[in-house]
Amino acid sequence: MENFSFYAPTYFEFGRGAEAKTGELIRKFGGSKVLLHYGGGSIKNNGIYGKVIAALTAADVPFTELGGVVPNPRSGLVYEGIELVKKEGVDFILAVGGGSVIDSAKAIAAGAKYDGDFLDFYQGKAQIQDALPIGTVLTIAAAGSEGSPNSVITDEKNQIKKGAHSELLRPRFSVMNPEFTCSLPAYQTAAGATDIFIHVCERYFSNTKEVSVTDRLCEAVMKTILYETPRVLRDPDNYESRANIMWAGMIAHNNICGVGREQDWGSHHIEHELSAMYDVTHGAGLAVIAPAWMRYVLEKHPEKFVPFATEVWGVPLDTINPMETAMRGIERFEAFLKQIGMPSGFSEIGAKKADIPAMVDKLFAKKDTEGNYVKLTREDVTKIYESVADE
Amino acid sequence: MENFSFYAPTYFEFGRGAEAKTGELIRKFGGSKVLLHYGGGSIKNNGIYGKVIAALTAADVPFTELGGVVPNPRSGLVYEGIELVKKEGVDFILAVGGGSVIDSAKAIAAGAKYDGDFLDFYQGKAQIQDALPIGTVLTIAAAGSEGSPNSVITDEKNQIKKGAHSELLRPRFSVMNPEFTCSLPAYQTAAGATDIFIHVCERYFSNTKEVSVTDRLCEAVMKTILYETPRVLRDPDNYESRANIMWAGMIAHNNICGVGREQDWGSHHIEHELSAMYDVTHGAGLAVIAPAWMRYVLEKHPEKFVPFATEVWGVPLDTINPMETAMRGIERFEAFLKQIGMPSGFSEIGAKKADIPAMVDKLFAKKDTEGNYVKLTREDVTKIYESVADE
Repeated sequence: MENFSFYAPTYFEFGRGAEAKTGELIRKFGGSKVLLHYGGGSIKNNGIYGKVIAALTAADVPFTELGGVVPNPRSGLVYEGIELVKKEGVDFILAVGGGSVIDSAKAIAAGAKYDGDFLDFYQGKAQIQDALPIGTVLTIAAAGSEGSPNSVITDEKNQIKKGAHSELLRPRFSVMNPEFTCSLPAYQTAAGATDIFIHVCERYFSNTKEVSVTDRLCEAVMKTILYETPRVLRDPDNYESRANIMWAGMIAHNNICGVGREQDWGSHHIEHELSAMYDVTHGAGLAVIAPAWMRYVLEKHPEKFVPFATEVWGVPLDTINPMETAMRGIERFEAFLKQIGMPSGFSEIGAKKADIPAMVDKLFAKKDTEGNYVKLTREDVTKIYESVADE
Repeated sequence: MENFSFYAPTYFEFGRGAEAKTGELIRKFGGSKVLLHYGGGSIKNNGIYGKVIAALTAADVPFTELGGVVPNPRSGLVYEGIELVKKEGVDFILAVGGGSVIDSAKAIAAGAKYDGDFLDFYQGKAQIQDALPIGTVLTIAAAGSEGSPNSVITDEKNQIKKGAHSELLRPRFSVMNPEFTCSLPAYQTAAGATDIFIHVCERYFSNTKEVSVTDRLCEAVMKTILYETPRVLRDPDNYESRANIMWAGMIAHNNICGVGREQDWGSHHIEHELSAMYDVTHGAGLAVIAPAWMRYVLEKHPEKFVPFATEVWGVPLDTINPMETAMRGIERFEAFLKQIGMPSGFSEIGAKKADIPAMVDKLFAKKDTEGNYVKLTREDVTKIYESVADE
């Protein structure tokens, strides 16, 4: 196990009716003038918007609004949010939505306290030194941004999707009412579950030896997702299943499963180029890339794929042919993704084989290798893309 | 899943050399005059004391000292600590030790901010409204007090061991260097592992339905303990094994595994009477009581014992005879406790059958039932004690 620091001071209010606490939580964490940040308006149709407004009003919290966040959130709206925050004297940002809304809120929070271009944080040109506090009311179980120090934004001008990381970006509180996720379409539910599962994979596939406690925790989250997801797709209003997936989504990405171990993140970065170019739903893009990454990497470094198969997927261990065991794990993962309706190739997500060189160029614009479990070259990543370019 | 709040804002510095950060962490969390609280002096022999003093000195943190905490920490020293804190103007308490030292520090922290008798908090006569901040340098993986809001103190005058709970008692930071646990005797190591395992059992055995994510997390911690403990007993200086047990001990009790579900705590309370009367090592007392609790409760409510057997202990599921499967899990747990050198009956811990009525009287002094998974009566608890009264 490697040395680490872990500090996850987000307050979680979880369960039916949790949103009623939103106003008092903002007060508790020092907010006096709020930017209410949200997406395309679905929260107005499903009643979440009204409930949050009622909670703010009950706690006498003044607010201004900025809606319009889209999946794979864009830099343009972030600039607009930074302007608005400065103009209105906002001191707390409340994100009501999924990972895109929360990530956009985090970008505004950091940008509002920075004199330069907020994209500097996402391009590795500057470190976040200060940020407005944020809170969230979560409506999609997927990104884990409700408990994480991460944010991913798409620079729409250059079609570049990159992440920033700072402990200052961890939400002060997150309100998590699983009922809010019941109205999600099946595809979004499954894409969210895929994202959660692969957040754990990025931590599980590690070269760090002797990390049994975090190995077991990673497997716990993966098993929860593979148990609950088909159930919730059959029965979308199943509160219990929604609740387990929602809490699993937070645990998958607040790093309690990832401390003390090298992490990979190759699949995520390889997918980000797809999302940036074709505006693919992130979880769906991961469903295409992650199994392709696994099949490619297996040949070079099978070790961790054996417990992945036996502990997560219940494949019997064949000590004479551990590669057989390992391959069965990947096959079961692929079967699971197909079962929950996720895509498996470029043809299903509108990606083009002809664009592979451009995506590889962008991915390797500032680095020579990708990922850690196996350090992939341009040629490796090209082969991974090509293995799923079925159009 | 039940509604819940979760807030665990302890900062963890984990790994080799982590103690060097102690002084700056105290500064970061606002301490300017420290009470250094510790046990019987073993930290002076093994060098931990010197390292902590060096870290305090390097950060220019003034401190006063109070050693002498014993296992099953006593009220007498807490009163002394409260006096000292007030006299010296201490504003931060640093506990260097295991659960006993940390629990004693928490009692002093709460007592120093209270005009009445601090035992009021432990006797349910008052709620903690304020407390000094505390930090810890952990030397034993067991109690989980380094990340928990709990403290257990023995009122030595009345031989009563009771717990207090307040979010104000969560340490601001905990320094966790697994090397510090390498010098522990085998018996203490095994007793600590038993305590960790049963902290999770108290959460696992629950009537709350549909909690797959926390079920899996509980199993993850249990499997870590049953894998790593025999290994570390064979090879006490195995840093990796010590590290996994140490982090598992924190996760077992900061409640990440217990949110949203009814918890039991019967075994702990039944054991506390043993510790209070005979000064038994808590983990060793639990090794006697927990399997006895399981065997007794199994007959009344087998449900949760089936996954306990299959998921934690790898027992094949016999759907025709699930009670057989369940019993095999308890038997494997008992065999494990024997393997790691834990006691199984009163004769090994100096307890007396003749004292059972007195222990039952104290346990039920203010309540009619004990535990939640099965609500036990006086008669039930008497039978549990009697089933292990082998002297």
